[in-house]
Amino acid sequence: MIYLTEAQTSKLISHELAYIAVKEAFVAAVDDKATLFPVVNAQGANLNEMFSLKSASTPNLVGWKTGSYWPDNHKHGLPCHGTNVFLLDPLTGMLQAVIAATTVNAYRTGAADAVAVSYLAREDATVLTVFGTGHQAEYEVLAVSKVRSLTKVLVVGRSASKTENLVKRLLEKGINAEACDAQAACEQADIIITATTAQAPLFEAQWVQAGTHISAMGADKVGKQELPTDLYSHARLFCDFASQSIVIGEFQHSRNTPIIEIGQVINESATGRQSADEVTIFDSSGIAIQDLFVASHILALSQQ
Amino acid sequence: MIYLTEAQTSKLISHELAYIAVKEAFVAAVDDKATLFPVVNAQGANLNEMFSLKSASTPNLVGWKTGSYWPDNHKHGLPCHGTNVFLLDPLTGMLQAVIAATTVNAYRTGAADAVAVSYLAREDATVLTVFGTGHQAEYEVLAVSKVRSLTKVLVVGRSASKTENLVKRLLEKGINAEACDAQAACEQADIIITATTAQAPLFEAQWVQAGTHISAMGADKVGKQELPTDLYSHARLFCDFASQSIVIGEFQHSRNTPIIEIGQVINESATGRQSADEVTIFDSSGIAIQDLFVASHILALSQQ
Repeated sequence: MIYLTEAQTSKLISHELAYIAVKEAFVAAVDDKATLFPVVNAQGANLNEMFSLKSASTPNLVGWKTGSYWPDNHKHGLPCHGTNVFLLDPLTGMLQAVIAATTVNAYRTGAADAVAVSYLAREDATVLTVFGTGHQAEYEVLAVSKVRSLTKVLVVGRSASKTENLVKRLLEKGINAEACDAQAACEQADIIITATTAQAPLFEAQWVQAGTHISAMGADKVGKQELPTDLYSHARLFCDFASQSIVIGEFQHSRNTPIIEIGQVINESATGRQSADEVTIFDSSGIAIQDLFVASHILALSQQ
Repeated sequence: MIYLTEAQTSKLISHELAYIAVKEAFVAAVDDKATLFPVVNAQGANLNEMFSLKSASTPNLVGWKTGSYWPDNHKHGLPCHGTNVFLLDPLTGMLQAVIAATTVNAYRTGAADAVAVSYLAREDATVLTVFGTGHQAEYEVLAVSKVRSLTKVLVVGRSASKTENLVKRLLEKGINAEACDAQAACEQADIIITATTAQAPLFEAQWVQAGTHISAMGADKVGKQELPTDLYSHARLFCDFASQSIVIGEFQHSRNTPIIEIGQVINESATGRQSADEVTIFDSSGIAIQDLFVASHILALSQQ
């Protein structure tokens, strides 16, 4: 059994590796040989301590991801979130590898966004608006900056200090970022990313310009919502895994609108963006197949 | 993160350690601070390749067990079944230990039987009948032999050669075993153990003598059944975890009969055997809390 520590995997992970792995995962996810099993949402001894078990299998990868959230960890100087990926040998079922993946997980989620932007945003998109000022929002912007030539990033947050803090972090990484209010940010955007824990729409549908691509990254539970449902009547909808997206993802709030899985766009069994003025929306609810593919690539790299 | 290999854990495990840990687990299971989460029954790439994720938490232990069954492994000289237990640090949610537990699992299941026999069988029980001739049947007999002074073990199997093989293995371990037909074996038995994958009763209710204790170890899925339901009207029923036992355990076939959790007997909030001529039945459907407790004891022993 191979164990890769957080120190090892956080050195091995890159936006490029995550992008390649997540793209492969999205294609694998639309193959009828891939299966996602029911998610377990479990708890620690205290009600607010949570861990989840998300398992999947494909012809070449079998395993699961565990995510943990222990909110008091920050009091002890430890991260509240933790992620590990467990791979079984698909030929024998034996435990093959345990891969600490807390940093990897941030790259993997950013990569889902980058793949969606790559296939769905206009080639000439330059202005990116991001809702959310947390750790994940930064990874999303950096991942997307690898697939489009961004000239400006507009950051929208509820807290002025947190917004300024993200702007500062992005500027330090060479990204031309500034704080902005929601309406002005939407009106200027070619790409809108939402990376929040919101339970109500973050902006109004009429602020979104023709030709915008939106990636909704936050919704992964019943009750979460980032987008105004008015958008759905004049947008084309895409997601990572439709049966999950309509239950726990952003599209739990959609009604009878066709939803295309991004893997179908990548493998060319469905069309992505069809015109320069169409609005495209991608919902990332997050699937275990992504985690297995990224972990597998990290494992292969570690053995080189 | 501590990893204990199968070679390490198979040396550390003993009937005595498993007994102590499983007894503690049964008491913990009846505490309202313990939770069993939904079981995931997942598959590998091929339909007959299966793995399960069984998670639980108590105030001091958080984690899950993975059991795998890859039926073609025997063609490559590998065991078909594999078990690993994963412990999270209950204070931080971080991955604390991965414990290879294939052999441990056989002891842990035997220990459940031994605890039940210890609390429910007559003190003067000497004749044990076992239905089933597999690997697990042997562990059950050996575990029970630690808690009662057995003078004879009667082995009932469908295959004469497998039955003789188990008899031989038991004789080699100093157990006075012999093959027997089902009726004669039941009529002589003080204790009956069923350790099969049966989906229909293995014997008739009228063959069971007053004062017999029965441990049904096999049923852990919908559709499995080892005991005749006629027994339930004149027996007292016990199990590891009632809400699981009545869904996937032997007592899925019981109707409106009160069922006592063995942890209540151990902690003296319920009575066990009440008279020498009562028939007692224990159903072991197997709970993740057992696995966490056994793994935790193995981990502690490994650190000494």
